[in-house]
Amino acid sequence: MSAPKTTRAWILSNPPTDMPDESTFKLVEQDLSELKDGEVLVKTTYLSNDPAQRGWIQKGVIADRMYFPPVEINAPMSSFGIATVIESKAADFPKGTLVNCLTNWREYAVIDTTLGAPYVTRVDPIPGFKETHFLGALGLTGVTAYHGLENVNVTKDDTVVVSGAAGATGSMVVQIAKKIIGCKRVVGIAGTADKCKWVESLGADVCINYRDADFKEQLIKQTEGYVEVYFDNVGGEILDLMLARVKRFGRVSACGSISEYNNSSPPGFKNWFEVIANRITIKGLIVLDAGARWPEMIKEISEAAVSGKIQVGDANETIVPTAFEDVPKTWLKLFEGANTGKLITHIV
Amino acid sequence: MSAPKTTRAWILSNPPTDMPDESTFKLVEQDLSELKDGEVLVKTTYLSNDPAQRGWIQKGVIADRMYFPPVEINAPMSSFGIATVIESKAADFPKGTLVNCLTNWREYAVIDTTLGAPYVTRVDPIPGFKETHFLGALGLTGVTAYHGLENVNVTKDDTVVVSGAAGATGSMVVQIAKKIIGCKRVVGIAGTADKCKWVESLGADVCINYRDADFKEQLIKQTEGYVEVYFDNVGGEILDLMLARVKRFGRVSACGSISEYNNSSPPGFKNWFEVIANRITIKGLIVLDAGARWPEMIKEISEAAVSGKIQVGDANETIVPTAFEDVPKTWLKLFEGANTGKLITHIV
Repeated sequence: MSAPKTTRAWILSNPPTDMPDESTFKLVEQDLSELKDGEVLVKTTYLSNDPAQRGWIQKGVIADRMYFPPVEINAPMSSFGIATVIESKAADFPKGTLVNCLTNWREYAVIDTTLGAPYVTRVDPIPGFKETHFLGALGLTGVTAYHGLENVNVTKDDTVVVSGAAGATGSMVVQIAKKIIGCKRVVGIAGTADKCKWVESLGADVCINYRDADFKEQLIKQTEGYVEVYFDNVGGEILDLMLARVKRFGRVSACGSISEYNNSSPPGFKNWFEVIANRITIKGLIVLDAGARWPEMIKEISEAAVSGKIQVGDANETIVPTAFEDVPKTWLKLFEGANTGKLITHIV
Repeated sequence: MSAPKTTRAWILSNPPTDMPDESTFKLVEQDLSELKDGEVLVKTTYLSNDPAQRGWIQKGVIADRMYFPPVEINAPMSSFGIATVIESKAADFPKGTLVNCLTNWREYAVIDTTLGAPYVTRVDPIPGFKETHFLGALGLTGVTAYHGLENVNVTKDDTVVVSGAAGATGSMVVQIAKKIIGCKRVVGIAGTADKCKWVESLGADVCINYRDADFKEQLIKQTEGYVEVYFDNVGGEILDLMLARVKRFGRVSACGSISEYNNSSPPGFKNWFEVIANRITIKGLIVLDAGARWPEMIKEISEAAVSGKIQVGDANETIVPTAFEDVPKTWLKLFEGANTGKLITHIV
């Protein structure tokens, strides 16, 4: 089969302010450019679905306020993916190489390999681990979790509460905090009893279901004496509650705010004064700042996984076999709280 | 005249969740205890009115979350004041000494001088400065402003935006940032054209009126290229706007949130994601943390005032002559935006 000259692609057609839906995107056919030196043509197999992508398509988003270029109208939706090189003009990426790169929502893509990590990396298999793990635990997600802990100087003497604990990042935060850093206590927050059970199986001392009627009481009980660190993946009401449960001079690692991404009128913080009265430090982070620690973190996480100290298995992923026509539909599951671990689209 | 055995006092009778009013407090007569060693009996002349006091009377406030003991029901309202010793069992505080102490809302009070600074300090006059300045610029307020700047490591290379810039703390932030630290640029935010003019006379490069219809456009223009530091005295909508105007890796000094103190349903932050995307650090502060820097800061501020570098004059105070029956009424002016500089009750 000769290499394709065109690809199907999902482009951004209608930037949302609230909940996106299938009308946010449009399926089109696009030309593929001729390969230049250093470029490869890849075929996409897996797409990474990340809450952060929601920020890249927000209506009116200002490019110089983003850590990552927003998606322009009529441009393909940005996304990391696992793909296979099917034509190559890059010596280090011969035909057949597996790559983790910005495939975006395209069946085929021309990729500039000179961009380097983390935008284009070879996927060199580790026995016992699937290639999809390089999108999650052994890739961006794992580093996000680790960097988010280091960014607020978490040590073994800290108790850490983490929201979205059954999500891709949260489940790695639980494991890295408990099993690599060795934190005194890790409390998860998740959205179903099953998820909570899974989070506890990962090593959390306890995981609380925020949909329980007595969630607030449980949270108070499980954070008695207050906690040093809150790792925030959700923003909104849970962040507000946690401002009152973080210790004097405690820290909040602001990693995500999924509860607010699709809400142009988010709820107010009733506990903002706690930041002042208890001298709380809140620090935002982006995985790209991990810098020199990036490869070290991947190495530490991989070694912990190989030794069985942390779990990076099928349970850490929700892989959804998806026809290319349904790529947005699978991505939207992110906002339904449907996934346990990393939500991955398998293009079939 | 022999020393009084009783005093009138305003006690907390009805802790508020929203805007307090005169029914929040009750005027009563209380016994004064016999002086023990180290104690003095004082007569109150001036009361300090501080937005922070609102936090001390919030309904349901939890003592161990406060940096300062909340006011108990039926206890006198807490307040710093300037008072004169009329009877003494403390060698360092002979009869006639002026003291800056927690008089609370009482005409007379028995004060334990062994508590020391900042709870009980002698007021040793500086030529050209009134005793009331020791409640403000040359006291707690000045240290709050200075510590709030140092707490986020402000340097001369920073542009600082400060809200509540015509208030007691804000007006000192403007002057310390511009005249002592020597910041590149200081932008004030205040609530009337006259206040803005005054803030500019203190050294702000510009001051914007948040009541102007085009406030948001002015703010964007005056923060072009974004700013390193936002000093927040108000919280709420202005804090939300500023999250989008602070530079990547910028800092927010969270000092107060007066816009929210009387609002049990504060507005949501539409720009919370900016904290993450732009890796903003938000740090809460309380003046009591200034520690060893406290006397040094007072010294630096006093010297700058004596040399005329910063302005500590009548314009920095709004002194309201007040019958003791009207003490709460004067305090409530804090929330009307009525004062320029420090709001002080002069008991007449």
